[in-house]
Order: sequence, then structure tokens, then C-alpha cells
Amino acid sequence: MEDVYKLVEAESANMEEEEEDPECNSLHQPLLKRNRTLSSSPLAIVGAKVSYIESLDYEINENDLFKQDWRSRSKVQVLQYIFLKWLLAFLVGLLTGGIATLINLAVENITGYKLLAVVKYIEQGRYLMGFVYMAGANFLLTLVAAVLVVCFAPTAAGPGIPEIKAYLNGVDTPNMFGATTLFVKIIGSIGAVSAGLDLGKEGPLVHIGSCIASLLGQGGPDNYRIRWRWLRYFNNDRDRRDLITCGSSSGVCAAFRAPVGGVLFALEEVATWWRSALLWRTFFSTAVVVVVLRAVMEYCKSGNCGLFGKGGLIMFDVSGVSVRYRLVDIVPVAVIGVLGGLLGSLYNYVLHQVLKVYNVINKKGKLHKLLLSLSVSIFTSVCLYGLPFLAKCRPCDSSLADSTCPTNGRDGNFKQFNCPDGYYNDLATLLLTTNDDAVRNIFSINTSSEFNVFSLVVFFALYCILGLITFGIAVPSGLFLPIILMGSAYGRLLGLAMGPYTHIDQGLYAVLGAASLMAGSMRMTVSLCVIFLELTNNLLLLPITMLVLLIAKTVGDCFNPSIYEIILELKGLPFLDAHPEPWMRNITVGELADVKPAVVTLNGIEKVRNIVEVLKNTTHNGFPVVDCGVTPPTGSPNGATELHGLILRAHLILALKKKWFQQERRRTEEWEVREKFSSIDLAERGATIEEVTVTKDEMEMYVDLHPLTNTTPYTVVESMSVAKAMVLFRQVGLRHMLILPKYQAAGVSPVVGILTRQDLIAHNILSAFPHLERSKGSKKGN
Amino acid sequence: MEDVYKLVEAESANMEEEEEDPECNSLHQPLLKRNRTLSSSPLAIVGAKVSYIESLDYEINENDLFKQDWRSRSKVQVLQYIFLKWLLAFLVGLLTGGIATLINLAVENITGYKLLAVVKYIEQGRYLMGFVYMAGANFLLTLVAAVLVVCFAPTAAGPGIPEIKAYLNGVDTPNMFGATTLFVKIIGSIGAVSAGLDLGKEGPLVHIGSCIASLLGQGGPDNYRIRWRWLRYFNNDRDRRDLITCGSSSGVCAAFRAPVGGVLFALEEVATWWRSALLWRTFFSTAVVVVVLRAVMEYCKSGNCGLFGKGGLIMFDVSGVSVRYRLVDIVPVAVIGVLGGLLGSLYNYVLHQVLKVYNVINKKGKLHKLLLSLSVSIFTSVCLYGLPFLAKCRPCDSSLADSTCPTNGRDGNFKQFNCPDGYYNDLATLLLTTNDDAVRNIFSINTSSEFNVFSLVVFFALYCILGLITFGIAVPSGLFLPIILMGSAYGRLLGLAMGPYTHIDQGLYAVLGAASLMAGSMRMTVSLCVIFLELTNNLLLLPITMLVLLIAKTVGDCFNPSIYEIILELKGLPFLDAHPEPWMRNITVGELADVKPAVVTLNGIEKVRNIVEVLKNTTHNGFPVVDCGVTPPTGSPNGATELHGLILRAHLILALKKKWFQQERRRTEEWEVREKFSSIDLAERGATIEEVTVTKDEMEMYVDLHPLTNTTPYTVVESMSVAKAMVLFRQVGLRHMLILPKYQAAGVSPVVGILTRQDLIAHNILSAFPHLERSKGSKKGN
Repeated sequence: MEDVYKLVEAESANMEEEEEDPECNSLHQPLLKRNRTLSSSPLAIVGAKVSYIESLDYEINENDLFKQDWRSRSKVQVLQYIFLKWLLAFLVGLLTGGIATLINLAVENITGYKLLAVVKYIEQGRYLMGFVYMAGANFLLTLVAAVLVVCFAPTAAGPGIPEIKAYLNGVDTPNMFGATTLFVKIIGSIGAVSAGLDLGKEGPLVHIGSCIASLLGQGGPDNYRIRWRWLRYFNNDRDRRDLITCGSSSGVCAAFRAPVGGVLFALEEVATWWRSALLWRTFFSTAVVVVVLRAVMEYCKSGNCGLFGKGGLIMFDVSGVSVRYRLVDIVPVAVIGVLGGLLGSLYNYVLHQVLKVYNVINKKGKLHKLLLSLSVSIFTSVCLYGLPFLAKCRPCDSSLADSTCPTNGRDGNFKQFNCPDGYYNDLATLLLTTNDDAVRNIFSINTSSEFNVFSLVVFFALYCILGLITFGIAVPSGLFLPIILMGSAYGRLLGLAMGPYTHIDQGLYAVLGAASLMAGSMRMTVSLCVIFLELTNNLLLLPITMLVLLIAKTVGDCFNPSIYEIILELKGLPFLDAHPEPWMRNITVGELADVKPAVVTLNGIEKVRNIVEVLKNTTHNGFPVVDCGVTPPTGSPNGATELHGLILRAHLILALKKKWFQQERRRTEEWEVREKFSSIDLAERGATIEEVTVTKDEMEMYVDLHPLTNTTPYTVVESMSVAKAMVLFRQVGLRHMLILPKYQAAGVSPVVGILTRQDLIAHNILSAFPHLERSKGSKKGN
Repeated sequence: MEDVYKLVEAESANMEEEEEDPECNSLHQPLLKRNRTLSSSPLAIVGAKVSYIESLDYEINENDLFKQDWRSRSKVQVLQYIFLKWLLAFLVGLLTGGIATLINLAVENITGYKLLAVVKYIEQGRYLMGFVYMAGANFLLTLVAAVLVVCFAPTAAGPGIPEIKAYLNGVDTPNMFGATTLFVKIIGSIGAVSAGLDLGKEGPLVHIGSCIASLLGQGGPDNYRIRWRWLRYFNNDRDRRDLITCGSSSGVCAAFRAPVGGVLFALEEVATWWRSALLWRTFFSTAVVVVVLRAVMEYCKSGNCGLFGKGGLIMFDVSGVSVRYRLVDIVPVAVIGVLGGLLGSLYNYVLHQVLKVYNVINKKGKLHKLLLSLSVSIFTSVCLYGLPFLAKCRPCDSSLADSTCPTNGRDGNFKQFNCPDGYYNDLATLLLTTNDDAVRNIFSINTSSEFNVFSLVVFFALYCILGLITFGIAVPSGLFLPIILMGSAYGRLLGLAMGPYTHIDQGLYAVLGAASLMAGSMRMTVSLCVIFLELTNNLLLLPITMLVLLIAKTVGDCFNPSIYEIILELKGLPFLDAHPEPWMRNITVGELADVKPAVVTLNGIEKVRNIVEVLKNTTHNGFPVVDCGVTPPTGSPNGATELHGLILRAHLILALKKKWFQQERRRTEEWEVREKFSSIDLAERGATIEEVTVTKDEMEMYVDLHPLTNTTPYTVVESMSVAKAMVLFRQVGLRHMLILPKYQAAGVSPVVGILTRQDLIAHNILSAFPHLERSKGSKKGN
């Protein structure tokens, strides 16, 4: 873990210069400083790229100027907003469904023609030529995917789910949802999956759905945005968050054709904040996705889509199997669950180590990233093509009365490969096919004698290795399918072993094995259960699936956190957990504030020079605004200091850009402000202080910050424990939290400090307060 | 609405007397007072009983003494807690499943034998005798249910879901989860359902599940609690909330045999706070319920359970129907959706009016409640028995080749009733049976010619009337089944009308009609969809069900809120919505505090006399603790006042009870406190000041409040808008929120006011600030 953090660590150039202000001196005295400082690392790995990350702001900004939210404005505008919200949810579903179909079509056709050509060479006995053709095609496809990712959109690498999870938790991940990323993710995903790599399109589809949602919300790619007036309602972090939640659900739905599962996946795994209203909009999006998929499948049934037909969408329909299980069947089911938990946590552990090694390699440059991807591709081709030669040819079971054995075509359950007529190669059935078809074959029911132990062991071992080495390479890659493949293999093996003692079909064992490994690695329960329910189209499987999932998750939780949590930590994304660590009770926010650089406050009416200096010399994004010498209503002879609120860096830069200057220190009138600023201005972000030019004369002028200040930031008293502060921070979705003094007296600063997301990350606190490490008990295990 | 509020309004005896304290005088000056006051009504209707309600406290109480949470204690204790949590979740599932089976068994047997006897009379032509028998039996069963409810547990009336919803939102509803309530709810539910009243056992089962969860968590009924040491971990509002969430999910699951639907119902409709960890424990409970139900059904298959066999658990299995729909079928589906929305909102409106009338009747006393229930029972019997005589006898369809027409037994789809052999009475099929069987009959597939229009219209009209007049009577009653019955009737009618133009089966129309009316009235989407999926056991229905639900909910939302929201408001339960009203942006918490009685603060070391007076003369549950004349670290010449925290009434009473007194004003040592108090003491609630006796000498002594004070209450600055404060209040689950001044100066009180749940209820704010009513825009409609 440590080396990764070093990689991520960067200049936290927080050298505050104390401004001089004759009137309000006491405020700028540096607070009690210690040697230790709370270091924060604003860098994290997004996709495969080290990026500067920021925090999102879900707080309602209440400043004098725009205290009147649009909601309290005209009815027409409210209706526009609601209409647009639903229109966007519809479009997200429509486009995600469309793109998912496109990817499926492309993958099925590319892989299909590739496999047909390979089969033709094999039929002619030209095995080497077949290998060269297959390895070459896979190499090229991987090359396309990897070059696109490495050169154009490093953020498109990997599944994207951890980054989306972090985004919905409040971490802004730059370049994550852009048009280039979307494009590269689509093409890269087609390339990587067609190349036969051990990865799925499920994770990427979640990312694609989120990209579509984000692009729709902002009206198009960054440089070519549609400036539709209605879209301005969506120019805030909250509505964008909701849209991206819709997008990620649609993605899951499109991947598994599981509308309820998609909604639950977003709810259980991805989203941090949730409300009923969102539940139902998300549901609408997934419903649209399902309708689109269904329509396309109807259209393709008549053979209009090339080799696409059976493949792609419903992954494995076992609705035909009659599920009659009795109490004794609970034993193998429990065994599968325990195995899934053990193997899942082992997988998490080993993958973590592999990813750390990969990070070191990837850091060395683009060429290394490319070479790594291509090596994995070649290794995969060699194994997929070479290993079936080790398997013995098996005679077709004449009792099946199935004219489709052996098969040579695009799909089919009994591949002939190198065998004579009337015989099939069971390992080729699993390896020389698309990943989707491999899953379908291994899940197939009433085929208890199809696969022998040797083939299944080889298959399992191969996919364990591939699953570990493939995930970290710089192409779009999902985790679901590799885990399903691994899990189904050992499930089916167990089915073979238990064969004489149980009545459960072996295909069902494979399904349960896949479910158990998913739960053991990803630690989801309800959403996985529903996804498997919708995949297998058999409600009677429900109780048995539940049991497997519960056992696997429980066992897995004993060893390590879920794979997504591991990746989040590895990437250095400051994710705020739902539960504060127990030792956070033993430290107060006041103590945290003490080890941070002193808070930089501004006066309600501040000199331009001071503002420019503060902006140039700090990297803070929010500054408390304080008025000195005011007279409170209850009267204080010496005058009081008043906490006016918090002003954002973006708004300070805006004030400088718009030259909101005046010669004398005076409060401005409302109409002056309204003339100068519009709500659209205030919603803009991303401007930097370097873009601003201020003349020497202007430097001596004043800015009235009052109208631009958020007068109602959330606050905590300095004696509050970090645990409770964190609950508030996460629940309300904050970016800044002001710390107030618990003392009330003249001369006490009205703000003790300011907390941000980075200050509340356990790792950062522990590095400043090492003694807490000792008291760091076991994490609450619910 | 107004008259109900008057009913609910009571003495809000908040006549604060200002305490005299020479040292800290400025603190006790009454703040700027206006004429208007914020009236709060701490009374609400729980079940059928007007009760004094309180707010729950989900905040972590951090006082000096018990700052060390158990979590940071020994590992063994953590494991004990986790083990117990899961054990309780298991027991909740087990017991809920068991009791659900018991209720089903009892209902099926009582109704079965009753109907068999009636059929025998009819066969003999003794129609009057049949009526007398049936009406008499129904009367007696209703009487038992109503007497139990009226005399022993008024809180057991109705479904209980709104109260549970309020409880999980943070409103304590007294006597809601007691052993008596549980017992009465079980027996009453059996009685009411067996009596043939138009109500279901679904809502009561949710309440029963919650009761079981609450009783288990506290170790048994109030007077006979098991004092198991481990159970002390559950003696707090947070863990009880989680348990009750588990219980309510288990209840839904037991009602519909829908484990995923149960979890989603709790999530979408009932719970206010939710986290992933809870999702998966809830899921475990529902899994246990399903296993119990399955086991019992296996056992009963062999005829060990009397007349129980087919009935009860799987309500309507339409997995046999082949669902082939085309684009044109979208028209009738959309029509059903729109109709469902319109009728659902109309039902909500009319039911609201009926309930208001019923409230007036019920207020008049127990006898009136009883008479009302019995009148409804007699009316129901007359209609159920009399109306089938209006229907024409129809010949059995010989093409069905079904030897079960006509049927005379306990169940069956073609009741003979008064018809000659070979003929059946279609209205009797729907009316002279249990409600569950009626649903099964009307949902039955491939029976397109079974019901004629006249019968369906009569059925629909009858159940509209019964559904409106039955719900408010003083017996346990669920809303699901009446709505399903109504909805299925018009769905089937629509199916008849569309017959020639569509390929959808009429049974399916009935299912969709039921779903649409549920969505139109209850406004749930995802959970309803999953419940219907699990009920009908047919995944292919999913897209079409989704569409119907979405349309119905959208249409319904245009007219009025959901039925549960209406009932919550009617009952006066202070439910905090997820979204603050838009006009709440225009008022600050400081303004709210101004119209409240001045806040009563205590000194860190307070005189016993003052404490006793404050407790006697106020009804507040929390008091800010303030220290005067302290010296802050940054030094203030005149001394500062320090906000030490918030002390709860329960803890003040505890200090008085335990005689935590001392002669002189001094801070106590930690060991002294630890000797006197244990964490179990602090968790106790419910003691009143009247129980405490303090001698005259003791009155002059002092109490050190510091160790008992929660040092870290959540706070807001007085300039914060009510909208943002409400978000905080609800998200973090508070009972008290302190308002801090925005000014920092000597002589300013460190606490401006204190906000409670009642202060944030829109109705209460509007009555104190009528001008806000004008700006009250349309409620945000997402």
C-alpha cells in the first residue's frame, strides 16, 4: 500500500501567507501550531492516469444574491426542469441500450468471423496457420484497444466502476466522463472483448452509461456544448450526480438485461446517497434499456445482424431446469458458499498484489503499458489455442439425439476442433469461443457427462491466471465475466464430485459457483441475487442463491474488504465510508484543525490585493468570510465579529474577472450585484487565478464579498469528535465544513478551522496522529 | 385536515420560568420575543389511539463518561454484538415466518369450515339459514377482533405501516410494538380476515414483524424482560431501528412470499435511513422467512393442516401463461396505467374524506368504535351473500374438459351456489370465498369467458364501497388486498372490452389492473414491481408491469400524495420529508428560534433546586449546558462563556435519582462518576421527575453536569435556512439541534435556541409565519 501512496503523494503547497489587516488582526494570528501536519494527497489514479482530484459540492449554496432558488420561481420553470429530468432519464436509457447493442453486435460479428476462419484452418489440418490467424487477430484487436486507451483516454482503462463509486461519493474525477473517454471506451471495449481477453463488457458498460448521462446533462462534449437554456438547471453537482446514477444503473441493466438488478446494483454498490425519487427515475431508465434491447433482439431474430442472433443478450437461460432440492442439498450449497468466500478473498488479495506490480510497470511510460497489454494478449491466445490439444476427444453421446454434436460453427456446445467426426473436444467447447458462449456452455443443463474433470481443472487454472493478469492492463475491462468464468468452473467441478449424492443439475452448480465467487470477491448480496435471478430466469432458484451469497460474503468479509474497496484505496481515491472508524471517536475536529495550516479568512469587504495573494498562495477552494466590529442585536460594547459565511474560490475568481471592484469600503446594493452576475455565472467552475489580470490601481480597490458568500455553511463545534463530523460530512454531501469555537468571548476567532474530505480520510489522520494507530481496533464487521 | 389537527392539538405547556443565576445572568435574558409562537402538537393518533409522541434519538451521545463506545472496547464484546445482531435477524425471520403460517392456517381453516357449512345449507335450498349462519359467524369473528382492539390494544388497529414509517423516521409511537399489541394484532387479524371483511393480512403482518423485532431486541415484553447481559447493546434507538426495519421486511416477505420485494418495500416505502449493511441483514431475515414458509408448505402438502393446502401462500401463479406481446399491446397497457393512476388518486381522496368522518365517530368512545365495526361486518355479509343471487347461472364450458365445474367445495373456480348442476354462478366465484381465493380466481388464466360484464361491474362497485368503508374500522386491516381486488376487477373488465383487439390473456389484464391501482394509490414502483414479479412467478411480465406502474404513479402524483402520506398527515405524525419545501429557504432557524419560548440553559455545575424547577416547569427533553467565566486558550481578558454541550432530561432525572450531589461547586473526577453511573443506567429512558424525591437540604446542593453532558451536539448557525437545517436534522437523525449565534463577542449567549422535530414540520412553521403560505409554491414533483 505504502509505495502506491508515495506515487500518489504530491506537492501540497499550502504555504499560507498571513494577510495584514489592521482592523481585524486577531483573526489572522496563526493558531497553535504543532510540528505534525495533516498531509493530504490531492492526487489519485483515475483509470490509468494520475490526476489531480477535487471534491464535489452537493451543498445548497445560499448566498444573498441567489437565495431564491429556481424552485421558488415560476411554475413553468419547475415544469421545464421536471420534464427535462425525465427526458434525460429516457435518453440515458435509450442511448445506453443502443450502444450496448452496438457493442454486442460488433463483438459477436468480429469474434464470429474470426472463429469461423480459425475453424476452417483446423478442418484443413493447418493448425499452425489457424494459430497464427487467431493470435494475429487478437494481437491487432488488443493493439487497437490499448493504443486508443494509452494515447487518447487513459481514464478509459479498467472497469471505471471504482471511479464512478468515488464520484458519487463526492470525489471529482477529471476527464472521467468526457466524449473522448466514451468513444475510446466503446471502441476499446469492442476490441478487448473481441480479442478474446479474459475480461467482460459489463464494467465498461456501466462507465459508458455514466458517460452518456454526464454528457447529456452538460449538453454535449466540452468544446461543442449545446447552450440550451433549459440545461442550465443541470449545471450543478447534485443533478449531475443523479444523472450519473441513472447512467450506471442503465449500464448494468444493459450488460445483464437485468432492470431490477441494475437499479439494485447502483443502490447497493455504486451510490452513496439515495432517495426514493431517484429510485424510480433510475427504474425508468432501466425499463427503457430493456425495451430497446428487446426490440433489437426481435429485429435480429430474422438474421439481419450478421452472426449476432442467439448470442449476447440473455446470457444463460436456465428456466427449463426443474429445481427440486431437498434439505440434504444444503450441504453442497454451503460448501459452494464457503469455497466462494475463500477463493473470492484470495482472489482479492492476489489481484491486489498483481495490481501493485502493474502500477510500477505502468508508471514507466506508454510503451510499457502497451507492451504489457500485448504480452497478455499473446499469452491468452497461446493458452486458448494450445490447451485444447491436451484434452482427449470424447465420443458424442448418442442418447442426446442431438444432431448438433459435434459442432463446428460459430457457437454450439460440442466443438469438434481436432477430433474425428462423432467426437468432440470438451476443452475447445470452453476455450475456443466467446466468453459469453463459454459461460453459456458451462452453465448448460442436462449435460452432466459433457465435461471431464481434467478439462474443467485446466479451464479453472487457466482462468485464474488470466483473471489475475488481465484486469490491470490498459484496456477497458470488466471484472464480472472473469469471476463468473472462474466460479462456474469450480462450481461444475464440485458438481462432478457431488454427482452421486445430489439431485441438483451440474449446470446449476456452475451458476451457484459463479454467484458464490462474485459474492466472495465483490461482496454484494441483494443486487447480485436479483441479477442472477434475472439472468437465469428462474425464480425457484432464489432461496438457494440467497444462501450461497450470504455464506460467501460472510466468509469473504472475514479476510479482506471487497475488491472495489481495495481498488479504491489502491488508486488513492478519498472515499468516505459510511461508518467512521471506532478510533475516530477519540479525536476532535479541533485537534485536526490544530495540525492543519491556519485557516485563511477574508473580510466581508476585502482589498483586491489580499484576494489575489490568497488565491495565488493557497490551493484552498473555500475561505470563511468574517466581518469585524459589527454590533450584534443583543449589544456588545466592544463590537463583535460576525461569521458571514464561506466563499468559494470559483466565486472569488469570478469577482476578479468581472472586475467587481469599488473605490471605497462599502456594502453594495442588491441591484448592483444582480446587474453584474447571473446565476449561470455562479454555476461555472474551472477558471484559474492565472487567467485573471488585475492592474496595479485595481489592486488597491475593494471587493464586497457579502453577496457572493454562501451565508449558511454547515458547521461543527471544535469539541465534536471526528467520527460525528464525518457522519455529517458524508450524509449531507459537503465539500467544506467550518469548525466553530466552543468559547464565546471578545477576541475569539469565529472560525477555528475548515475541514475538507481529505482531512477525514482515515489514512491521512493516522499519519498525523500515529498514536491513534495503536487504539485502532478491528473494523466493525457488519 | 383542520379538524383533525384540532383533535390532535393539546396543551403545549411550555411555560418556562426563568431561573435566577447571579453569575451567568446574561444567558437567561429572554431573547427577543414576538407575539407569534411556534405551536407544536406532541399528540398524534397511533393506531386508533391518541397518544403523546416523542422523538427518537439516533445521535451518538458523546459524554465524558462514555465517550469510549463499546466498539472500541474488547474484541469479544464486538463479536458478541455481531453474533447477536445476526441471531436476532434470524429469529425475526423465523418467528415472522412462523406466525404468518399460523395466521394463514387459522384463516384458511376458519373460513373454509364456515364456507363449507354455508354451501351445505345452500345445497339444501335453505338460503336464509345459510345467510344467518354466515352473517352470524362473520359478526362473531368481527366482534372478537374489534373488542380485542378497542379494549386491549387500540394501537393494533389499521395496518400499522404509517406508524412504522413514522417510527423509522424518528417518531416514537408509544405502545406500538408491545406484546399486547402483537397478540391482539395476530388474533385480531385472524378474526377480521376470517370474517370476510374487505381487508388483508399484509399490512398487519408488517406490523407483526416489527413487533417481533422490537420485542426480541428488548428481550421480551415490558414487564417480563430477559435481562441478558448481551442484550444491553441493543438498548439504543439506532439498533432498535435496524431491527424494526428487518421486521417490516420480513412481514412483507411473509405476506407475499416475496423476499426481494420485502427488502425493497422496506427500502422504498418504510425506511428513512438506509445503509448497505442493513440491506444485507434484512435480506437474511427475508431468506429465513421464505425457508420457513417453504418448509411448512411441504409439510402441509400431505394434508396435515386441515383445509390449508393450496391456499394462502403463493397467491397467484401465472407462470404458465405465455407472454407474447407486440407493440400494439402498448395501448391497452397504457390505458390500464392511466386508469390506475386516476382511480388510485380518486381512492386516496375519497378514503381521506371517509377517514375524517370515521375519526369523528371513533372519538365518541369505545361503543361507537365497536358499533361501526359491526355495522360494516353486517353490511359486508349481506352484500357477499345477497349479490350472487342477482347473477345469472351460466353453463359450464364443456370445451374446458374440466371436471371441476361446477364446484361446491372449499375452493375452485366455478361455484355452483344456487345454480342447477352443470351451471355455475360467476359472481359467487368471486364473492363467496376467501379474499385470497377471489384474487386467484379473478387472476386465473385461459378463462376468458368465465366472468360476464355484469358480474365484474357488481364486483368492482362492491369492492370500491367496501374498500372505502372497511379500512378505518377498529380492527387490524391491510390496504394491499382491497386494492388488488378493486384493481383486478377493472383490469379484467378492460380485458373483456379489449378482447378482440389484443392477445394478452384476461388474467394478465387483471394482474396489471391490480398493479396499476397499487401504484396509483401507494405510489411505489420498484418494490411493487418486484413483489408482482415474485407473486406471478413470471419474469417475462417485467417490462409490461414496469410500464403500467410508471404510468399509474405519474398520473397519480399529479393529483395527491400517496395514501400513506395522507394517513401520516391525518394522524398528525410529525414525519420529516426527504425534501424541504421550497419556501423553507426563505426563513432562517434564527427566526424560528425567536418565536419559540426562550431556550432554557443550565450551568455546568448547577444547583439542585434549579434543575428540579426546570424539569418540573418545562417539557423539554434536552437542555444546553453552558459554563461561564472560563478562560479560553487564546485568552480573553473578561473570561468567556463556553458551550459545554447538551444534557438530556433522562440523564438529569438519573442524576437526581442517584443523588449525584455535592456540597460545593467543583468539577468531579472521572472515577467518582464511574462509581456512580454505568452505561446501562444512561441508556434507560422513561423515568419522570415525579418519581424523584429531593429533600430540602439537597435542594441547596450542586450537581456536576459535565460528565453527563453530550459534549458534541450537532449545531447550526442562526443564519442557516430552515431548509438546510432540516436536511441535516433528517440525514443525521437528530432529536435536538442547537442554534449558535453568528456573532462572536463578550456577552453574546453561546446558544440562541434549540430546534426539535416539531419545529421543522411545515404545518407548524406555517401557522407561526402565515406570510410564508403565500410564497408556498407547488411542491417539487419528483
